[in-house]
Amino acid sequence: MAGPVEPATTTRHGVGVADVSLCPSGFWGSRQTVNATATLRHCLEWMERLGWIENFDRVASGETTVTRPGWQFSDSEIYKLLEAMAWELGRSPDPSLAAAFEALVERIGAAQDDDGYLNTAHGHPGLPSRYSDMAMGHELYNTGHLLQAAVARLRTGHDDGLVHIARRAADQVCAEFGAHGRESVCGHPEIEVALVEAGRAFSEPRYFEQARVFIERRGHGTLPVRPLLSAEYFQDDIPVRKANALRGHAVRALYLAAGALDVATETDDQELTEAVTRQWENTVARRTYLTGGMGSRHQDEGFGDDWELPADRAYCETCAGVGSVMLAWRLYLVTGDSRYPDLIERTLFNVVATSPSEDGRSFFYANPLHQREPGAVASDGVNTRAEGGVRAPWFDVSCCPTNVARTISSLGSYVASVDDRGISVLQYAAGEIRAGGFVLQVETQYPDEGTVRVRVLAAPASESRLRLRIPGWAATATLAVNGDDAVSVAPGWADIRRTFERNDEVILELPLAPRLTWPDSRIDAVRDTVAVERGPLVLCVESTDLPTDVRIEELRLQPDLGLSAHADGAHAHGTIAVQTPAAGPLPFGPTKPHFSDPKRVEITFVPYHRWAERGPAAMRIFLPVAG
Amino acid sequence: MAGPVEPATTTRHGVGVADVSLCPSGFWGSRQTVNATATLRHCLEWMERLGWIENFDRVASGETTVTRPGWQFSDSEIYKLLEAMAWELGRSPDPSLAAAFEALVERIGAAQDDDGYLNTAHGHPGLPSRYSDMAMGHELYNTGHLLQAAVARLRTGHDDGLVHIARRAADQVCAEFGAHGRESVCGHPEIEVALVEAGRAFSEPRYFEQARVFIERRGHGTLPVRPLLSAEYFQDDIPVRKANALRGHAVRALYLAAGALDVATETDDQELTEAVTRQWENTVARRTYLTGGMGSRHQDEGFGDDWELPADRAYCETCAGVGSVMLAWRLYLVTGDSRYPDLIERTLFNVVATSPSEDGRSFFYANPLHQREPGAVASDGVNTRAEGGVRAPWFDVSCCPTNVARTISSLGSYVASVDDRGISVLQYAAGEIRAGGFVLQVETQYPDEGTVRVRVLAAPASESRLRLRIPGWAATATLAVNGDDAVSVAPGWADIRRTFERNDEVILELPLAPRLTWPDSRIDAVRDTVAVERGPLVLCVESTDLPTDVRIEELRLQPDLGLSAHADGAHAHGTIAVQTPAAGPLPFGPTKPHFSDPKRVEITFVPYHRWAERGPAAMRIFLPVAG
Repeated sequence: MAGPVEPATTTRHGVGVADVSLCPSGFWGSRQTVNATATLRHCLEWMERLGWIENFDRVASGETTVTRPGWQFSDSEIYKLLEAMAWELGRSPDPSLAAAFEALVERIGAAQDDDGYLNTAHGHPGLPSRYSDMAMGHELYNTGHLLQAAVARLRTGHDDGLVHIARRAADQVCAEFGAHGRESVCGHPEIEVALVEAGRAFSEPRYFEQARVFIERRGHGTLPVRPLLSAEYFQDDIPVRKANALRGHAVRALYLAAGALDVATETDDQELTEAVTRQWENTVARRTYLTGGMGSRHQDEGFGDDWELPADRAYCETCAGVGSVMLAWRLYLVTGDSRYPDLIERTLFNVVATSPSEDGRSFFYANPLHQREPGAVASDGVNTRAEGGVRAPWFDVSCCPTNVARTISSLGSYVASVDDRGISVLQYAAGEIRAGGFVLQVETQYPDEGTVRVRVLAAPASESRLRLRIPGWAATATLAVNGDDAVSVAPGWADIRRTFERNDEVILELPLAPRLTWPDSRIDAVRDTVAVERGPLVLCVESTDLPTDVRIEELRLQPDLGLSAHADGAHAHGTIAVQTPAAGPLPFGPTKPHFSDPKRVEITFVPYHRWAERGPAAMRIFLPVAG
Repeated sequence: MAGPVEPATTTRHGVGVADVSLCPSGFWGSRQTVNATATLRHCLEWMERLGWIENFDRVASGETTVTRPGWQFSDSEIYKLLEAMAWELGRSPDPSLAAAFEALVERIGAAQDDDGYLNTAHGHPGLPSRYSDMAMGHELYNTGHLLQAAVARLRTGHDDGLVHIARRAADQVCAEFGAHGRESVCGHPEIEVALVEAGRAFSEPRYFEQARVFIERRGHGTLPVRPLLSAEYFQDDIPVRKANALRGHAVRALYLAAGALDVATETDDQELTEAVTRQWENTVARRTYLTGGMGSRHQDEGFGDDWELPADRAYCETCAGVGSVMLAWRLYLVTGDSRYPDLIERTLFNVVATSPSEDGRSFFYANPLHQREPGAVASDGVNTRAEGGVRAPWFDVSCCPTNVARTISSLGSYVASVDDRGISVLQYAAGEIRAGGFVLQVETQYPDEGTVRVRVLAAPASESRLRLRIPGWAATATLAVNGDDAVSVAPGWADIRRTFERNDEVILELPLAPRLTWPDSRIDAVRDTVAVERGPLVLCVESTDLPTDVRIEELRLQPDLGLSAHADGAHAHGTIAVQTPAAGPLPFGPTKPHFSDPKRVEITFVPYHRWAERGPAAMRIFLPVAG
């Protein structure tokens, strides 16, 4: 029993998804419940209704045509759903879900060719031939998600149908693209990360080698240049080990970096590890939003230049948040650096948790940090666009719902890690963790409250280490062990070394007073603004909460007026100046803008991850500073 | 002899392109020379080389296939070039250009079907059938540009081949889309504006009626919704007379508005006139850049929300600048309001003049107001992307070069207007204007110098009015008549009424000291920045001019330090504070950004329209304010 990423060569490992039980009333536990009871079924029904699953039946019965429903990557959505179902079944068995899983696998298996090739948009009568469109065909991308689903199945204790299908598909990829095969790569990275994980799960070093070959081939202009797209879009402009920052299509860039790090880890390639680390550092320092969101441009769904971080047109695709968690998690397993789980926490609370609605049946695709006009109500059918502002039940390109589903169902794995010295608690969620000889009970209302109580229910017999991650934003955290006086702990790690006994208890107090967060002055888009955060949560102002005579663009935050936490938890209250800008006939003029005299209003800040839940609204995270 | 827009019902008319002779050493005269001697040939050669012209030969010889080169709108580029050539021949006859024009017309005419249909991407063996893709097929868009070329030909004195081809094509459109025909519209507006102008030129009211029908049909969701696109993109979401601002794809929106105003003018539809006027006012007040550029988004090449005006990702397509001139010119002819030629001046100097390189052989497609990193050197082949930063000789979608060409060759028409009371000088360019019984000689080095000398060489025999436009930015202009003391004239119109005599002379002094221009506080992207303008020119800072130890993102403008004009004209000098921001590991932090102590450096501001002419550079128009 294990989790999504299991390097063969590191001493550090995440906990298995079955080895963590999150409390259903907690922040993440409740989301796992919604995911299991609503989202998985929601995705299955949509893909059945649209005929994306039936595409496999069409291949099996030889009735393929180019008019098949769905994009060339629709197969991957079914595989991502299978991965989510597999983790969920590992976490909490459910006969009805198990039956749905097996029925899906059967239909998929019936569409597999004798040589292992499996794809519903290529390679069959009436369809384009195999691998005829490496730039946009997404065949290896689809296969990658198939492999990841199979890895999840195997790591939750089932060496059955899906695993056999995936192995045959992976073997076909190696035969086709290996040493004497096609010298090409897939336009959308994913096969790389999947082959390494499959190599780990199936103990098959050929898959590492194939992943390595794909990583090395990339960046040499292998993919044909397409009108309106660039080599950078595909990360085919610069070899992975030469690049200094993530660039181009954000999800592609993040999946590729994760795969490159996996290859580096399994082949002990220090230069490649350093390249990915450098890219991550530059990307986080200059191309990442306060929410952890990545991807500044709707155009190309891409990264922008350094400091190009517009709040309003932030794309911050949900899937890029998932990809960022994937990359940071791998970097953490390799290095043990607390900056990585720091970013994972920021991204989980402010991107991944932002996407699904409370009922788990609609999703944000883009996650902007500023909405000027309330979004239009989403269609209850297929939404052709991925604009921010409203959650939608399904999309024409519907990558995000299943990506959220597989992330939330496997979330337990990111909560803690074990190594030869003990256990590290990385994310604070009420529940029980069973790993490394420890059984830990975590009690907390985090992030509504700052107290985290870790009780030892079982521990190794000899001296061991229990370490707690102190988030980078927690400047004044304290720790108390077994009723001793609380001591200050600095951001990074708080280590307790001893021979633990049952009922030993550690109490971590994290400071949750609302705080001001300032952007770097080089981010032009939010110059002279400030944001409010509370613990790991980015807060925002929604027009829903404003007095009717106040427009959101008139708000000015006066830093010295203070903020107070709201009694009900994650909210905050603040006193804000309202200044009405003088309107002119042109947006540019000879005099500096002047304002009406400020008046003060009480404003409620709400967690960003719940914005637009009460209906379409205007919203801002960054407020201009008064005066 | 006339110009591009000749309403049948207004008392106000532009001057004919043949009735204005711009001085070849002046700002616009020199650009007309480069256009005539370099750009027209450049466009012709590229389209011959790429086979876009040969597409007509293929139709004529019955050898059409879907693998034809060029997009479905490539025919329009040849028509726009023909329009440019026609105006140029009207302005300044040239036998070699005339021969090239006639040869092109012959090849085009050979491809016309018996019923008048003319298109190289649809409606012939091996191609999609006629009007089978109204959303993206661009058939009527192409036909519209054919009509505009024919109008230019007729208005420059030739009722010959192209005119006959166009009339047959227009008749076919009326037959196909008229009262009992297809109830559809073209995804890219253009046919509307073209049909009205053709109706005016050919005295054919059926064309007005067909244009009216297209305008009324639009905005009712006639066009099929496409994946990744919205009805707003096509302006098919709201009827033209209901909309409050321009929205969706910027060029489409501007062409449509121009066509709607033309229809309103010819049908005396006051409600429609008011709708377009309202859309223009809201768009200029909230969705237009300092340069006059329109279109805030690369995504969809579209308008953004109100106040969404990022400097760095400003799309400001060159063609949208052309479209804005088209719309403002029509609004001026209807209303006589000086705000319209004000915007035309701003857009001509800062968008239209920015696109072509000095040699007229490469072009900006997008015109951002901020470039963080110098652009990559453009390919000397076909450029697949329309990124800002470098001018490129040709594009995969190459709408801008020919649009610049037809605008510059017909520029004379916008320089002045006549009405029953006299003549109005609208744009200041050295040259001679012959219209309304006047012959005016304009001497000026504008915009390098602020003196404009208008000498009367001939005038009507009775009392008449000579009016000069005083630009909105010219707060301290003065006017002197026949050596009298200069008197102050306010922005708007300066009128001189008298019985003019030969050698009467009016001297206008426009204030060209560099000035600071402030953005509205609601434009988040440029909060607390200021720009420098000089006369009609927006200035910018290029990294090319910076000391080697100063990075462009460190510049802070201290408004009280003053600016001085440069001896050589359009440049300006300023003293700037340089402040190095403190770097952190994350772009967001708990403390307000702090800076190094400022040092002062002399900075040269250069006209934005010439940026990147000395090689790729980082560039900014808006500089953060110091302190």
